[in-house]
Amino acid sequence: MAKVITPRAEDYSKWYNDIVVEADLAEQSVVRGCMVIKPYGFAIWEKIQNVMDGMFKETGVENAYFPLFIPKSFFSREAEHVAGFAKECAVVTHHRLMNDPDGKGIVIDPDAKLEEELIVRPTSETIIWSVYKNWIQSWRDLPILCNQWCNVVRWEMRTRPFLRTSEFLWQEGHTAHATAEEAQERAEQMVHVYAKFCREWMSMPVIVGRKSPNERFAGALDTLTIEAMMQDGKALQSGTSHFLGQNFGKSFDVQFADKDGSLQYAWATSWGVSTRLMGALIMSHSDDEGLVLPPKLAPIQVVMVPIYKTEEEFDAVLAKFKEISKALKAKGISVKIDSRDTLRPGFKFAEWEVKGVPVRLALGARDLAKDSIEVFRRDTLSKKTMPLKDVVERIPSLLDEIQENIYQKALDFRASNVEKCDNWDEFCEKIQNGKFLLCHWDGTPETEQAIKEATKATIRCIPMDSFVYEEDGKDIYSGKPSKQRVVFAIAY
Amino acid sequence: MAKVITPRAEDYSKWYNDIVVEADLAEQSVVRGCMVIKPYGFAIWEKIQNVMDGMFKETGVENAYFPLFIPKSFFSREAEHVAGFAKECAVVTHHRLMNDPDGKGIVIDPDAKLEEELIVRPTSETIIWSVYKNWIQSWRDLPILCNQWCNVVRWEMRTRPFLRTSEFLWQEGHTAHATAEEAQERAEQMVHVYAKFCREWMSMPVIVGRKSPNERFAGALDTLTIEAMMQDGKALQSGTSHFLGQNFGKSFDVQFADKDGSLQYAWATSWGVSTRLMGALIMSHSDDEGLVLPPKLAPIQVVMVPIYKTEEEFDAVLAKFKEISKALKAKGISVKIDSRDTLRPGFKFAEWEVKGVPVRLALGARDLAKDSIEVFRRDTLSKKTMPLKDVVERIPSLLDEIQENIYQKALDFRASNVEKCDNWDEFCEKIQNGKFLLCHWDGTPETEQAIKEATKATIRCIPMDSFVYEEDGKDIYSGKPSKQRVVFAIAY
Repeated sequence: MAKVITPRAEDYSKWYNDIVVEADLAEQSVVRGCMVIKPYGFAIWEKIQNVMDGMFKETGVENAYFPLFIPKSFFSREAEHVAGFAKECAVVTHHRLMNDPDGKGIVIDPDAKLEEELIVRPTSETIIWSVYKNWIQSWRDLPILCNQWCNVVRWEMRTRPFLRTSEFLWQEGHTAHATAEEAQERAEQMVHVYAKFCREWMSMPVIVGRKSPNERFAGALDTLTIEAMMQDGKALQSGTSHFLGQNFGKSFDVQFADKDGSLQYAWATSWGVSTRLMGALIMSHSDDEGLVLPPKLAPIQVVMVPIYKTEEEFDAVLAKFKEISKALKAKGISVKIDSRDTLRPGFKFAEWEVKGVPVRLALGARDLAKDSIEVFRRDTLSKKTMPLKDVVERIPSLLDEIQENIYQKALDFRASNVEKCDNWDEFCEKIQNGKFLLCHWDGTPETEQAIKEATKATIRCIPMDSFVYEEDGKDIYSGKPSKQRVVFAIAY
Repeated sequence: MAKVITPRAEDYSKWYNDIVVEADLAEQSVVRGCMVIKPYGFAIWEKIQNVMDGMFKETGVENAYFPLFIPKSFFSREAEHVAGFAKECAVVTHHRLMNDPDGKGIVIDPDAKLEEELIVRPTSETIIWSVYKNWIQSWRDLPILCNQWCNVVRWEMRTRPFLRTSEFLWQEGHTAHATAEEAQERAEQMVHVYAKFCREWMSMPVIVGRKSPNERFAGALDTLTIEAMMQDGKALQSGTSHFLGQNFGKSFDVQFADKDGSLQYAWATSWGVSTRLMGALIMSHSDDEGLVLPPKLAPIQVVMVPIYKTEEEFDAVLAKFKEISKALKAKGISVKIDSRDTLRPGFKFAEWEVKGVPVRLALGARDLAKDSIEVFRRDTLSKKTMPLKDVVERIPSLLDEIQENIYQKALDFRASNVEKCDNWDEFCEKIQNGKFLLCHWDGTPETEQAIKEATKATIRCIPMDSFVYEEDGKDIYSGKPSKQRVVFAIAY
């Protein structure tokens, strides 16, 4: 039997870590804060990448690749950006090792000190805008719509697999535009691409909104975000899209001749999602039995476990499974026949449950005799018997049903944990109990900061599509006038 | 008109650099030796990745991701490996910057020195085998067949775009096996996957062979290689696959309980190709007009340039192009209609020629009136007129013909520049004239070294499939007995 997962009710944080390890998604490496993404976990990330990459390209985005290293001086160019990113980072100072003259292994060669230190990219606005300077002379060169899938490093003192690691994988889109309006539209377009992906592929509802100035990306004039509710009621920021104004255009002197001949600074956006989405995926749907995957992102959508006593029974069941497998593959469904002969069916059942495979088929000699098969759904942990002849036809709609069901479940969970709140005492109590609270806010950073200090809650966003309440009211904390409700929650 | 490419005959090296820049493939960044891969260049790399990734997976390989950083001490574990890789590398020594107390920008925080320096991976055998130790306990855990697509850094003093850069993109496969035989088979299997890819997708003939001990990967017992002939007659090592024996198994103490209960060290392979393949692709087929791409890897397979004087003519031509475009896309062909109204057709022709688009369609009002269209082939620089109604049907086979033609051209070029040589004076002359010479070699590193010092030529490989001459002879240099001919060439 697979190892037991700590129940959520007992220790939510341990439950999460248990799933990461027991479902074979990732593990800590010997390098502080850097994880190894194991093949099963990486297969999920690959699916995320493939789908998103296609969605980006449909909007005209092209992929490119920019250097891993950024000269230290670049971080001084954009004042807010340096404060936000240059502090905790990996600094390359030398380019050579040598044998220790005292014979104790290998040491840095002091003669190979770099003239200027290089920073391993924590994000690439600076290096990319230094390149865009060469690409942009005229309005005809705009827009530039580039994306890169890459690794980035932010030195984190406290790390958790997928949610916060020193090295992580992500995509970062960087666009340059001739007008502010076009850049703002692009920033909005991309946050909606993220939201669509989360809903339709991850079965994860998200709130799309605007960050308060306090929570903006370092160097942005506007940050749009998608916020998801995890099962402990905490918010997970799952993707962001930034309107950067002309900040990087000015810092890197990227000017273009406009149609009227005047010189203008280019307008910028950047937007990214990372392997953090894997954490969001795990925490959105999984249960005390292990991982629950939305069928659209499951590396294995259907697993087949043969039940047998004799070799003849095994051969008969395997032959039938191969037939079903072939028919399902022809429908584009990913299938695995678990024919390992060293493990008992019960062990296999447990293993695939922990790994979140959406549908399990079990078939034995007695089922064969009755022309029936056992079909197990991971999302509801329920099984039923169906005629063998129907199974191939029914599985596609069953997978759709699971995809829809776990979305609905997450949506219901969120619905029962989001509420309006107009009373400070209630706020303090409910926010600790894992609620998203829709409250009036007076719009000042001071109030936001005071609330954060009192309760750890932050403004996750000013909602843009759902949960929009543009109405007069009084700030939950200061009592000052407010024009709209915002979402408060405690965040990862 | 696009800028002029330096002819090969005038300056081969400048020709190459001109194509990289003028075809918009890549450019130097401000960071020494690190390039920016531009969208058009990256689109080719993406195709290479997609196809190869599928070929790997067909052999059972899974993708995963391992840390960017490797603790310095890991390099001391495998003695030969450290000599080969740890010397010229990027060393991370600190994890924080701070504001300069003297107010001069930002500086390293001396309190944030790492206890142990981290090396930016030049290749990942060490970190991966430190992880495999946790994954491998029993023979049932084997084989492990992992690959990762990632960036690596090797500090190079002299760099050239794609061919030799300090940071480059690659894939590195790392497998672990229960027996030496199985590992050796895997190493051979993968070098043949590479060869097949080069031939069938890149239209690039390669010689598959075994490296002499001098030229082996640091830490390998056997290195298999694919060697391609560039148009200057130099050899480009385009991919390698290594049988690593138990070297890493022993260095990282990776033991497993075998079927008989005995403890054994795991056997290893590693294999990789990099963005260097882009350099091979450029140099295999391009001409003095610019890039020539094999249709299977061309981001745009067919470009359409409208010829018009009036808006009505433009509309009529565009409507027809859209019809053709739709029909070609339905056949899986990638198409671009170049409808930019600020550029003349001649400029567009030149631009797409430089960028190596395999087929160009030009259509004007007069063609429309005659129901004909002009079809231009990039590989032969020839054009012909065909009936408009036939164009959609003929293009797929035209693309196949181009794919085949450039392969044959490269094959013919190689055939006329590979020869047997049994005379030292001839060797010295011919090797400088860009020949691959099939010569007898006595099998000693000393002779190989002496030949290298005298002529710069190295043994590219001991051929395994083509050019195999297992026959008695006398070493070209020492005159000592030899059992087979090997390939000598001057290499990139």
